[in-house]
Amino acid sequence: MIRKLQANDREQLVSIINKTDNFSNEEKKVAVELIDEAIGNPNHEYYNVFIYENDGKIAGYHCTGKRALTDGVFDLFWIVVDNNGQNKGIGKQLLDHAENFVKENKGRWILAETSSKDVYNATRNFYMRNNYSIVSQIKDFYTINDNLIVFGKYIKT
Amino acid sequence: MIRKLQANDREQLVSIINKTDNFSNEEKKVAVELIDEAIGNPNHEYYNVFIYENDGKIAGYHCTGKRALTDGVFDLFWIVVDNNGQNKGIGKQLLDHAENFVKENKGRWILAETSSKDVYNATRNFYMRNNYSIVSQIKDFYTINDNLIVFGKYIKT
Repeated sequence: MIRKLQANDREQLVSIINKTDNFSNEEKKVAVELIDEAIGNPNHEYYNVFIYENDGKIAGYHCTGKRALTDGVFDLFWIVVDNNGQNKGIGKQLLDHAENFVKENKGRWILAETSSKDVYNATRNFYMRNNYSIVSQIKDFYTINDNLIVFGKYIKT
Repeated sequence: MIRKLQANDREQLVSIINKTDNFSNEEKKVAVELIDEAIGNPNHEYYNVFIYENDGKIAGYHCTGKRALTDGVFDLFWIVVDNNGQNKGIGKQLLDHAENFVKENKGRWILAETSSKDVYNATRNFYMRNNYSIVSQIKDFYTINDNLIVFGKYIKT
């Protein structure tokens, strides 16, 4: 089941984030900061965290929110599945949930920023497989030779 | 002269923002929020506000800051010149200052998000004239028929 974030989810989420091999230390830090922001403010304007839970155990989450100054663009900030829960369709269920959240909030676009690094190959394939297209690429973005790739899906209403 | 933001600049800045005809009410609100964030935290990680001042009177400002998770991408969040100070080269001086700030902080990219609306024609021409190129465009971004146009300049070190 997928449900809203609760304050006592923090420990399991931090553990999942820290076990994610393809996250750099800075990415882990930023991912945890965002969880803390969302816990600190359950009606956060930008950060909506939803948890995939099975028998009391958290297997992943997504964080999705509306972009300021737009009336219909949503960022999929993070979508994370526990190392032990890979290849069970949990990511796909979380992605569908994020897209439905966007629809419910009258959004048009869902955008996800990713890196061109090899460790993100599976992530990029995941978006392509789910009918996302590349809407922007900027070279030397995260660092030299690590480009930004923005995936987007236009949500029909 | 261009100098760092001080807390007592707020009143003049709010007046300049509110007089800017091509800002929507939401843009004005967000611009003021960002000024308040920067005043509340003079060593803000992301929002660095610099003021163009002449004889004690503020004629404009820019707000520039490093993008999280990157080691060299800076956003030019706002660059604003007072209605009465247009066409005097103040915008160009603020832009040069922002680019130098990026260089000093070992940045590679400076990015500026703009809208495709007609009221931003002059803004887009300003970036083109200053050797910015379009690095991304997303249709129906701010609202239906109002596209995102991201201008960028690669800063050589």
